[in-house]
This record gives sequence, structure tokens and C-alpha cells, in this order.
Amino acid sequence: MIIVLQRNATQEQMDYIIERVKKLGLTPHVSRGVERTIIGVIGPEDILRVTPLEAFPGVEKVLPVLAPYRLVSREFKAESSIIELGKGVRIGDREIIVMAGPCAIENLEILREIALTIKEKGVRVLRGGAFKPRTSPYSFQGLGKKGLEYLKQVGDELGMVTVTEVMDPRDVELVAGYTDVLQIGARNMQNFNLLREVGATQKPILLKRGMSSTIKEWLMSAEYILSEGNFNVILCERGIRTFEDFTRNTLDVSAVPAVKQLSHLPVIVDPSHAAGKWNLISPLSKAAVAAGCDGLIIEVHTHPEEALSDGAQSLIPERFTKLMEELRVLVKAIDRDI
Amino acid sequence: MIIVLQRNATQEQMDYIIERVKKLGLTPHVSRGVERTIIGVIGPEDILRVTPLEAFPGVEKVLPVLAPYRLVSREFKAESSIIELGKGVRIGDREIIVMAGPCAIENLEILREIALTIKEKGVRVLRGGAFKPRTSPYSFQGLGKKGLEYLKQVGDELGMVTVTEVMDPRDVELVAGYTDVLQIGARNMQNFNLLREVGATQKPILLKRGMSSTIKEWLMSAEYILSEGNFNVILCERGIRTFEDFTRNTLDVSAVPAVKQLSHLPVIVDPSHAAGKWNLISPLSKAAVAAGCDGLIIEVHTHPEEALSDGAQSLIPERFTKLMEELRVLVKAIDRDI
Amino acid sequence: MIIVLQRNATQEQMDYIIERVKKLGLTPHVSRGVERTIIGVIGPEDILRVTPLEAFPGVEKVLPVLAPYRLVSREFKAESSIIELGKGVRIGDREIIVMAGPCAIENLEILREIALTIKEKGVRVLRGGAFKPRTSPYSFQGLGKKGLEYLKQVGDELGMVTVTEVMDPRDVELVAGYTDVLQIGARNMQNFNLLREVGATQKPILLKRGMSSTIKEWLMSAEYILSEGNFNVILCERGIRTFEDFTRNTLDVSAVPAVKQLSHLPVIVDPSHAAGKWNLISPLSKAAVAAGCDGLIIEVHTHPEEALSDGAQSLIPERFTKLMEELRVLVKAIDRDI
Amino acid sequence: MIIVLQRNATQEQMDYIIERVKKLGLTPHVSRGVERTIIGVIGPEDILRVTPLEAFPGVEKVLPVLAPYRLVSREFKAESSIIELGKGVRIGDREIIVMAGPCAIENLEILREIALTIKEKGVRVLRGGAFKPRTSPYSFQGLGKKGLEYLKQVGDELGMVTVTEVMDPRDVELVAGYTDVLQIGARNMQNFNLLREVGATQKPILLKRGMSSTIKEWLMSAEYILSEGNFNVILCERGIRTFEDFTRNTLDVSAVPAVKQLSHLPVIVDPSHAAGKWNLISPLSKAAVAAGCDGLIIEVHTHPEEALSDGAQSLIPERFTKLMEELRVLVKAIDRDI
Repeated sequence: MIIVLQRNATQEQMDYIIERVKKLGLTPHVSRGVERTIIGVIGPEDILRVTPLEAFPGVEKVLPVLAPYRLVSREFKAESSIIELGKGVRIGDREIIVMAGPCAIENLEILREIALTIKEKGVRVLRGGAFKPRTSPYSFQGLGKKGLEYLKQVGDELGMVTVTEVMDPRDVELVAGYTDVLQIGARNMQNFNLLREVGATQKPILLKRGMSSTIKEWLMSAEYILSEGNFNVILCERGIRTFEDFTRNTLDVSAVPAVKQLSHLPVIVDPSHAAGKWNLISPLSKAAVAAGCDGLIIEVHTHPEEALSDGAQSLIPERFTKLMEELRVLVKAIDRDI
Repeated sequence: MIIVLQRNATQEQMDYIIERVKKLGLTPHVSRGVERTIIGVIGPEDILRVTPLEAFPGVEKVLPVLAPYRLVSREFKAESSIIELGKGVRIGDREIIVMAGPCAIENLEILREIALTIKEKGVRVLRGGAFKPRTSPYSFQGLGKKGLEYLKQVGDELGMVTVTEVMDPRDVELVAGYTDVLQIGARNMQNFNLLREVGATQKPILLKRGMSSTIKEWLMSAEYILSEGNFNVILCERGIRTFEDFTRNTLDVSAVPAVKQLSHLPVIVDPSHAAGKWNLISPLSKAAVAAGCDGLIIEVHTHPEEALSDGAQSLIPERFTKLMEELRVLVKAIDRDI
Repeated sequence: MIIVLQRNATQEQMDYIIERVKKLGLTPHVSRGVERTIIGVIGPEDILRVTPLEAFPGVEKVLPVLAPYRLVSREFKAESSIIELGKGVRIGDREIIVMAGPCAIENLEILREIALTIKEKGVRVLRGGAFKPRTSPYSFQGLGKKGLEYLKQVGDELGMVTVTEVMDPRDVELVAGYTDVLQIGARNMQNFNLLREVGATQKPILLKRGMSSTIKEWLMSAEYILSEGNFNVILCERGIRTFEDFTRNTLDVSAVPAVKQLSHLPVIVDPSHAAGKWNLISPLSKAAVAAGCDGLIIEVHTHPEEALSDGAQSLIPERFTKLMEELRVLVKAIDRDI
Repeated sequence: MIIVLQRNATQEQMDYIIERVKKLGLTPHVSRGVERTIIGVIGPEDILRVTPLEAFPGVEKVLPVLAPYRLVSREFKAESSIIELGKGVRIGDREIIVMAGPCAIENLEILREIALTIKEKGVRVLRGGAFKPRTSPYSFQGLGKKGLEYLKQVGDELGMVTVTEVMDPRDVELVAGYTDVLQIGARNMQNFNLLREVGATQKPILLKRGMSSTIKEWLMSAEYILSEGNFNVILCERGIRTFEDFTRNTLDVSAVPAVKQLSHLPVIVDPSHAAGKWNLISPLSKAAVAAGCDGLIIEVHTHPEEALSDGAQSLIPERFTKLMEELRVLVKAIDRDI
């Protein structure tokens, strides 16, 4: 932590800050310049973060030196984490894991039809929403428990790993009873009580990035889960909010290599929500894979016109098949499998 | 709703869309131009919103005509809502309501000291956090139930209305038992289950705008609460996330007159979180009042250096006193009270 | 400047950096911590800014300590600058200067009509565009030299200070021959050759903030003008680009007190371009004044329906009159004049 | 164009609007709904764009139906444009064109050294800045004419196409005399006079996207150049400004397929400026290629530590060589050449 003093800070103010730093058990290093004096504080920054140094008289600004996260960092664990999703599927290794399925589960028949279609193309992870966070209270909110039952039934029938969103700390136990992977949606990335709740399970957690969260905040939210003892976290970039309105969100493809540098956790990409348009899913999926992601989560629907949620961003089976074929060629070029 | 067809849309595609629109009980109006054909659909847009028109073959884009919210709108209720906060305090009327207090409740003595200080300046609403949403799992998370007890005790002693945040749907009943006004924080603006839960109470709800939420989304979140039967919603602008990093967030002062045009609900401003710096609170408070807000929520601390949360953005009593004096002069110039 | 070394930086890398810093005539201070070593460099940061320290092996990041601007800063000049606009009008003092007029000059008659209208309300500065930067090559681009002539004629007739935009370094001499104040538009805030050109005149320069420029970059652009010897710069906040689309841009009202803290230059606000809607101009003008700005620049048109540019954000005379009346009351409350 | 009337618009207001629309030679189609009346206007939208419909009494909002650009659109020209850069290099075809070189030209020797290095790896286009737009007036501003001479000399010696930025309309003729491709930098994307000036040449123009420009505005800026008769425009995505600060800008990789859908012009990507960090260039280059771009422009420097501009984002030759090898494998997987 570096404390930059105001130009006109008094000796008394400086002495007071130094004294306070020492009381915390830390060592201050003072460097006096012509225009500013700075105090470098060596030691664990966590102690300092809870002290509002910027409120001290004479302080101009405080510059942190260390990242605020710990357990999720590459410094804590140098080798990349590989996470078992169940049914023999592992993410974070050479294989790029494709998760696919409808945005919302509408009924058993359509879900099964979609699952069969994607399984045929090699997909081993089925996604589908039972609890849907919707901007409008008047929109379809998902089938709830009934949707979970359908998802489990189809997953069991076809031997596929299942992923679904949990929105409420009260539902964690319920949802965990039906599904292999728990998804935390973008709007809940900083729902800290929900993070703690899923951190108390040992289920793999798919943590979507908040639509206006920095990479640092995203990693801090993962830290919540790890700090509860659950290290099975998969990060998911799904587009951030910017001024550009051609796409629904702006896919931050740089977040993929950034996360791989900063953290040992696997990172996947959701091109469907990022783009909001089915005709951008294929190029964005390929871009994400080329950038080094560990997986993709893609909306596929056999009848997008009838979809009760986000039909406009769903791939029809023909297009999904074509995408999978192109990805198979692409992954070889970057020395990975799919 | 206006459906713009692709330039090369076929007659068959158009017929199909028209048929589907009619089946929904709506009336399509076709206008053929040289470059595009458009279909105007007259009728309740809610029916159409659940139909993914953009996924239909031949459709280029869909333009909504009506706002998606209803109960919160000025069209639904033309006169401005006045909300009773209890203890004789009403918001939305001529009087500008100042809410003040510490970011987090640290202990009974400091809370009482702060409350006494602000009460002396005419403040009748005391804010203080018992449950604190913190980016880091290692930061002070608030005193929880103990904090609620202190808040109630001081509120009762001094006859002040109390406001505190509720973060978890499981805590709504608990928090509602201790406080007059329930606050939904920016990070929970789209925690829809929490919105429904507070909508089921009749408590006044202070709904903070999400840091990257549009005004429309913010009003939709209020709509969730109203749609559960609770019309006592106060909107709170607290800064949005932009590229500018001199301030912690960018106070969107335009949101004040925008909300007053679009909605009958009262709107207040939180200059402390918007700025992140105590020395911007005074000018931003005055700007908010001049723009027409119905209240302010301001962090005040008697010992900001010792504050366990956000000390750097808290006003000390002297500065708060000066601000209140300036506001007293200002409100007269805009024909309001304080 | 503070150089944070990578965790695994070698002694050799550190020695090399220290040696380079010393060669530049600066003094490095090394602080070794458990997790990181940091090198504080005391001395003029300009020398270091041209050295790409982040490219050095072993460097994790570089944290600047000083602001990159100099002449525009309060540290360089503590008292606020007052700038003479001509015809007895001074900006930066107690009086809030209102500049008004049409977005684009359409013809002599309309310009004169508008000028007479606003002069009657006490406005002494007439704005009007002769060269218009337009997103589309097919939009009206302004009358050019003819527009300048009209502006000068009306300014001379009515004894009003005139302001108009210059877009091209080749036009600076021409425009300076006709007008009292030269405006640099938002899109040209980082047109550095244009900044140098206007810096070489002694005309007052109205420097609009770029729509996605930080306050720091804006001050750096002003620094370009001052560094050429022209200290007559007026900064103009006109809204920044964010995700919010209810307003055309988001008025960053915090920029007003921020600039007043950081710089001695006067700062004004353009509510018309910020909002893009005439019905927000009044509340935003009042907010800007309450926040401490030194002036306003407002679009007024007697026939907004016929305006060739931005009619939708122009005030009609009745509304402008009402705004001026309200401002007259407001400025007294903040101890200023208008 | 669709005109949405206010809920309480009068018949008189509607008649007036219809009359005005008819006078412009256009055909209004009125659709009356329960909640709103809308007027669809069929015909060339350009005529309507210059009429400020939103300023008309009774109008709530105006929704454009057609894109505002014309010559750059796929509707105007369905097949992708292939642009001759000279010396046998063509962009927009199967081959992905890599442009590389230093950010700024420092002297002849270093430029030649870098050019030789990249040529050896198959690069046929040499970039280098002679005029540098710099945020600070105190930073190195480029060698100017001397830099142009060095660039031409090295380009001629090695038979490489040369690209350099032109910042000032007065310099277009000079720069065009020395270089094969003229670059318009991000800060000048809406320097409309400069766009017209380069539009008057027949040189290939590399048009960088403004850091906060929408895709639509970027295409409008290209339209300026095409509307002057120069169809040789290459679009360059270089990152947009967002709240994320891990990268200098956020590479909007979706812009690549978006531009390919909307326009016939080739699009390339600049990963160096987008990331601001050399260690992200490789993954971003691969992502861009996988997303379908027609080329890359990459900063390479043999001595990044000594670079006078942006050393931190330059690749050293070893890393550039590795990137080129990886790209050679990758392009085959997407059926292109390099």
C-alpha cells in the first residue's frame, strides 16, 4: 500500500499516519520528494484495507500494490485447476467443454428434443433455466421446481451433466438436489449471501460475470465462494455493458487471457447473452476458443420462435451442428480437444 | 410494437408473421415502402413481449412503442406520490427529506453520537448499515441483528425514522421488525426475489439504482415491488458506472428530472456513494436539490478515520452543518422546504 | 512515480531498473516487502513518462503519483482565473455567464431575432454555429464563412460577445477574425494540431470535453493550449457517453466541482447537448449552477421546428425566459450574480 | 421513419405533422391504437433526418427504420470489397494481412531493423508513426517529415507497403506523397474535414474506430470518405472505452462480424492499442482472426524498453515470430491464408 501525502501535508499529520501504521504492526517507508512525500507500507494489505486511510488528514490518495484476492490467484496456486463436473466431464484441462440447451425449460418434450439434438453433436453438458431472472415482473419466470425435475430426468436419461441457475439463497439446497452444476447469474454476481450459500456446498459453481463488473470484482466474488471452502468455481464471461448498442452486451474477449493470467480457475464464454443475436454466436464462439477459453455455454433451441425466453439469440440445430464442426477443426489448430 | 422486415423478406414470411400477430388477438397494420416493409402492431405490448418476434424468419428488428412499466408510470398515476415514512415524516411533497448517518453501524455509542449531531441540524431520518454488501469476503460485513437493535434503540430514543439495508430475502421479516424504511442496495436492484419479498410488506422501500442500470430497468425493478401490492417505493440515484475514475461513480443528475417525468414515485439522491469523496458531497447535494429531487441520503460520521466502512466519503459534523445551512437557503430559491 | 516489481523479479532486473532511473538523474527509493518490492522514484515525473518502464523486465506495474498537467493546475496557480471575453464580459468571477443562441446559424433574420430575444433577458454572449461537425456527410454542415459574417454583424449590432466553433486548423485565422470566443467541439478535444493553432492566438477558447474523455484528459487538452501561451481557456462540460440512453449523453455534474478543485480555469456547462431534450434543460441548468459552474451555454431557437440542427434540444423563448427568471432567484441563494 | 405521438396528442397536432410530411413528398401511414397513434413514413429517410420531428408539438419519439449510411452498406454493394494496397498486397480477400512495426519511428536504423525482422516472418506491410497524437503536449510528438522519409526509404528498400497516420488536413498531401496507406487515428475518427481531405485522394485509408464510437458512427465516418469518391477504406477495430481497467481499452471483437454483416469494407484489428499490454496481444490476435477479420496491425519493436511511445504494448521479435507461427496454423483451420 502506498500513501501519497498532500503537497501541503504537515509534519504532524505525517507523524500521526506513521504512528497509526506502526500500531497496526506494519512498517512504513517514507520517501520525500520535492513535490510529494510518499509512505510505502510493507505488509499484509488486508489489515490496511479496513483502515480508511483516505479519510486521514493530509492524505491525497492511497494506491494498493497487491491484488485484493488471494485464494483464486495464480500466486496462491500456480497450476490451472481442473474441475470435475460429474459423469466423467472435467473442465480446465485440454478439452474445451461445450454446454448447450435452451435459455428456459418450457416443458419435458422440448427439453428432451433439444438435449438429444446436442448430445448427437458431442455435447455432454445440458443447460436449461428453471428459475429465470427477468427484468419485467410480467415476463415468464421459469417453471421452478417442475423445471428442475425435467432437467434432472433428461440429464439422467441421456447421461448428461446438468447446469441451472439458482437465484435465491433459500433455493440452493433444492437446486443442488437436482443438478450437477449451480449457475450464479450475472445479476447475482454480487449477491454475497447467495455466494456464501453456494460456497458451503461442494458443487461446481458457474459464476457469471456481472454486466458491469470489473475482472477484479469478478475474482473477488469467486473469492467469496472459495473462502467458504468450495474451490470448484468456473468463471463465465458473458459480455459487459457499454455504450455500443448493436450487440446486447459487449463480449470482453480480453477477459479470457486476463483471467488465465490472474487466476488458476477455468474460464468459459457465453456468446449468446453477449451478442443477443444468433448470427453472431458462431464468430464469437470461435474468437473465445482462439483466445484460450476452457468452454462455451450456448443457447440452442429446436423452435426458437416458440421459446419463452431469448429466442432471438438461440441457435437452431442446423447452425449449432455447423458451429460444432467448425470448432472441431479450430481446436486442433490451437492444440486442444473438444 | 413495430416489426421492421428484412429488405428481402418474402410474402410468405410476412403472411406468417401477420397470422401469428392476429392469433394473439392483435391488429397488424402493414406499411410497404420502397426499401422496407413495416408492420405496426396495435394493442397491449405485454402480449408481444413474450413472443420472440426477432427470431421469426424475415424480421430485421422490433421496435417497442410503449414503456414496459405500468404501475410506476405517470400515465398510470398522474399526481406525484407522497409516502409516509412514519413519525410524521412524508416524502414526495414540498419538503426535501435529508437522511443521514454512518455507512455502517459500529456500536451503540458512536451511532447515538452521530444521530444526536444530525438531529440537532434538523435531520429526522437516521440511516445506518447492519448488513453490509462488501466486495471482499474479508471486509467488515456489518453487525447484523445487533446493529438492527442499536438502530431501533437510537431511533426510538430520538424519535427518528430509521433506514437500513436488507440484502437477503430471508432477512426481510427480521429487518422489517426493527426499522421504518427498508433499503435495497444498488447490487440488489435486480435481485428479483428480494424485490418480491419487500413488495409483500407495506414498509416504505428505498430502491437504489444499480450501478449499471438504465432508468428503464430501475423503474422495472420498482414495478416488481408495486406489482406485489406495495406502492411505497422511493427511488434513489447513487451514481452509475462509467469510464471516469476521478469519482467513484458518475452521479447521473439527469435521472432526477427523468424519473419525475416518467414516474409518480419520489426520487432522492445519494451523493456520498456517487462521489466516493467527502469534498464533492456538498456541490452534488446542491445540484441534486436544484434538479428537483425529493430528498438526500448522506453519510455522516463523527470519527471518519475510525469508520469501518467508507470513511473517506463521510462528512464530519462541521461540514454537514455547513451543508445543511446552505441547503436551507437553496431550497427557498426553488420554492421548497427542508 | 512508483514502480512495483513482479513477485519473482530478480536482483539483476532490479539493479538494472535502479541504474536506469539514476541515469535519468533521479533518486530511487527501494522498499522491500514480503510479497513485493517497490521502487519509489522521486523527481519530475515528466522525465519518467517518456521512459516505458512497464516494458522493463521484472516490472509489474507503474503507479504515477503526480498529475500529468501543470499549467492548468491549482498547484501552478492557486487563485481562480478570470477571463475577459470582450465587450466588458468576464467569466470566472462572481457572475454566472449565460451564452445562448441557435445550434446552427441558418440566416441573418432568424439569428437576429433569436439574439434580440435573449439579449432582452440579459444574455450578453451569443452562440451560433457556422461550421458544424455532423455525424452524417449528408446533414447540413453549416453556412461557413457566410455564417461567420452574420454572427459578427448581429454581435456588432447588439453589442454581444460572439462564440462559434472552429473545426479545422486551416480556419483558425478566418474564424478568429470574426468572433470573440473560439469554441473547440467535443469531437475535436484531442485534435492536438487544432489545439496548438488556437493556443497560438490570444482569443478566449471554449474547450468542450470529449464525450468519452476523462477529466484528466480534458485538462491535458487545455494544457496544450496553455503550453502555447494562451491562458484564456474556458472548460465546458457537455455530457459523457454512458450506457444510459434516456438522455443523449450523461451530464457529469461532478466534473464541475472536480475541475474547480484541480484547476484555476473557469468551467461552464452545456445542458442542451448533454440532455438532447429541451425538457431537461431547465433542471440541468439549475443543477449545474448549484454545483458551482461559472456559466451555461444553452440552445435557444425561436422556431425549433425549422431548425436545421438539433431543434429537439432547443428552448423556445418563453421557456428560456422562465429559466432565466428561475436562475436569477437561484444564484442569489448561492451568493453569485447572473 | 416512425413517428410515435404522445398519448394526449391532439388531432390538430397530428394533422399538422401529416401535412408537413406530405409537403416533403412522402407518404404517411397512420395507425391508431388504444394507447398511442403512430405515423409510419415511407420514403427516403434522409429527407426526414434534416427535419427535427422530435421538436414538433405532440411527438413523443421518432424511430428510424433504415440505417443512416448508404455507400458503405452491404445493401449498396453485396460482395466484399478487395482493396489494393500496392506492391501486390490486397486486403479483403482470403489472405489475412498482417501490418507490423513500431508505434513511433525513432530513427532510420531501428526502423530498418524492425522492418527486416518482420519481413523475414512474412509481413509485407510496415507501419510506423511520424505524426503522433499524444495526450500530453510534453510527450514525444513524432519525427514528422523526417519520419516519413525514413518510412518511405525502408519501404522502398524492402519492397514493403507502408502505413502511417495523418492527423491534420494540411498534411494529407505531404503524407500521401510518402506512404502507401493513410491511417486516420481513433481520436480523429470524427474529424470530418480530415475525412473529406483523405476522401479526395485515391489512397487506401485505414480508418480506426473512435474509442467511444458506435459501429454505426464508425460506418458513418467511412461514409464521409466514400462520399468524396474514395472507396478504398479499411476499417480498424482498436478497442473501445469501458469501465474495465485491466486492459487499456476493451477489444470489441463482436465489431468484426458486425461490420462484415453491415458493410462490404474489409475490417482489421489492432490488438496492441486495445490491450495496452504485450502479453495479451497473442490471444487477442487469434481471437480476431477466428472472428473473421481481414488483417491485424501489431506493434513490434526490437528494443521496447527504448521505444519513445507505447513500449509496454510492443512485441519483441521472438514473441512476434511465435505469434506468426501460431497464426499460420490457425488460419488454415478457418480456411484462409496469411
